[in-house]
Amino acid sequence: MPNYFVETTKAVSVLPINSRPKFFAFGIPSYTNLGDQAVSLASRKYVEAEFPEFQYIEILEDDNDQGIEAVKQIITSQDIVSFVGGGNMGSLYTDHESARRKVFATFVNNLTISFPQSIHFEETAQGQKELQLSQEAYGRNPHLYLVARDGQSYHRMQTIFKNRVLFTPDMVLYLKPRDFHFKRSGALFALRRDGEKVVSDNLIVAMKNLLNDGQRAIKQTDTVLDTVDRITPVTREKLFDHELTLFAHQEMIITDRWHAMVFSALTGTPCLLFGNSYGKGKHAYIDWLEHVNWIDYTDETDPKRLEDTINRLMVSEKHDFDLGPDFGQLHDLIARHLNTMK
Amino acid sequence: MPNYFVETTKAVSVLPINSRPKFFAFGIPSYTNLGDQAVSLASRKYVEAEFPEFQYIEILEDDNDQGIEAVKQIITSQDIVSFVGGGNMGSLYTDHESARRKVFATFVNNLTISFPQSIHFEETAQGQKELQLSQEAYGRNPHLYLVARDGQSYHRMQTIFKNRVLFTPDMVLYLKPRDFHFKRSGALFALRRDGEKVVSDNLIVAMKNLLNDGQRAIKQTDTVLDTVDRITPVTREKLFDHELTLFAHQEMIITDRWHAMVFSALTGTPCLLFGNSYGKGKHAYIDWLEHVNWIDYTDETDPKRLEDTINRLMVSEKHDFDLGPDFGQLHDLIARHLNTMK
Repeated sequence: MPNYFVETTKAVSVLPINSRPKFFAFGIPSYTNLGDQAVSLASRKYVEAEFPEFQYIEILEDDNDQGIEAVKQIITSQDIVSFVGGGNMGSLYTDHESARRKVFATFVNNLTISFPQSIHFEETAQGQKELQLSQEAYGRNPHLYLVARDGQSYHRMQTIFKNRVLFTPDMVLYLKPRDFHFKRSGALFALRRDGEKVVSDNLIVAMKNLLNDGQRAIKQTDTVLDTVDRITPVTREKLFDHELTLFAHQEMIITDRWHAMVFSALTGTPCLLFGNSYGKGKHAYIDWLEHVNWIDYTDETDPKRLEDTINRLMVSEKHDFDLGPDFGQLHDLIARHLNTMK
Repeated sequence: MPNYFVETTKAVSVLPINSRPKFFAFGIPSYTNLGDQAVSLASRKYVEAEFPEFQYIEILEDDNDQGIEAVKQIITSQDIVSFVGGGNMGSLYTDHESARRKVFATFVNNLTISFPQSIHFEETAQGQKELQLSQEAYGRNPHLYLVARDGQSYHRMQTIFKNRVLFTPDMVLYLKPRDFHFKRSGALFALRRDGEKVVSDNLIVAMKNLLNDGQRAIKQTDTVLDTVDRITPVTREKLFDHELTLFAHQEMIITDRWHAMVFSALTGTPCLLFGNSYGKGKHAYIDWLEHVNWIDYTDETDPKRLEDTINRLMVSEKHDFDLGPDFGQLHDLIARHLNTMK
């Protein structure tokens, strides 16, 4: 039975029939990457807060094919189709890319929004074959807008696709920073175990030695949970809040995951981000978060120099920040669509 | 007598009266900064190539007040008003900022485009006073679109202004790369002598020592000429071509000027860019040019590490690059305007 999430706390299998314009959100993850879960949570919060006119309906990527068929039965011209944002457009995650293609190539008469993504098609024969499939599928939809969440992706999307491209931050940065007022202790290493990992194990050991003063607890984790099998729109907010709470207790986060930096930004937690295989965290940091005092990105590998950076971050002063206005291009697009319906 | 440049090679003082839609380009420099001159040259080439429907009319910033009065007499709703791009929006260059405010606050019923800029209002009382004046002036024009040429400026513009903000590269990057096939010799230092300079003299000396192998000529220059008093639309292209020729003869460019990096990119010349006071070159490089092999940006100050970077750049392989598609948002805006006239 497909799960259409009509309400945040209730999964249903029948789509609603009423006159309200619908916002169909495809590509919703059920896997346990909390970064991706936070993206789909923030997207829902964004549309529900900024455009309450819409009934927001999430369709799990697991149910992509059945979801497409069900939506086809009830969709009208006032409705918007979207596919979830994140860092998985391209040839590295073909399951997501293939679900995305189907959605874009199906609803070619509706305003279609690809929520903020970073993109990477490999220069291999396989990567270029995947690219061609995406060009073909995206190219069929004249009402498709791609949103890039960093400058590198913006350039790449405009270079390889004919579709219009907008520029906003990652959706999770729409969420407001929170001050938990916890007493902080310990350092948390949030590290990838996937194909995008490039930080050397030696460097990680050196960083642990740097932060280990004999008293400070050094823990390691990943923002991809292995304590649960599955996360859905019904369970994600609680797990997300739990993760923010975990971050807000730390003195320092060392990570190679972009969303671990975002969670650090939102909780005022000092954080040093290292690179992944194609620079998505670096570019997003420099475009949107460079002005946030307590976080930094680095390509440095000399522990002595990294010590200075960590010491600076750990005593940095907190300040307000707000990326709400940076979603202006997305806001204008949806507002223009609403205007044409009047 | 005001100079309205109706044709690229002819200055006239009377505006044309005919039925063609006009593209009024305000803020055209007569000072001798070749970067700024290249921006106004490239803007003209952009509009003339992409939208030949328009008669492109340049108004020197020297003649801003008289130009505004003259344009007011003949402007109609089909016409577009623009102000030149560059790296001078903000409180550092109040003469330019004040000319810009007047244009934006005058033509409030016309599509108004602020060509790609980077922006910096200082955190001082004076800087914040200037900001308020700009917010007031820009805020009067509901048809004003600001274009940011880097992610940092995009964030700043959306945070401090209510106007819509687009994202494109610097206009000079619209120009196509050229291969001059010169035999290269020598290294050229293109260095600021203004308030944005932050590179230390010691580092410059160290870089000169690095590049001086006893045979290689080491020259110093600035992209702001002091060999001429004034540059106008009539003379700028020849001087720009002359500068590109100079760059295309070098083995290496060391600079803290963003447009010296752009000239290096366009001529296939190895180039290392250092920072200015507020990161405009760094951000523009990372957003648009990081994929170009023979140029790099650095905050490094250790000559030993810089030696490795320079050696890498000097043997880097050339490849094609094209930022044309990155002007998509500007293109869409003007195309939409033309559509409403039909």
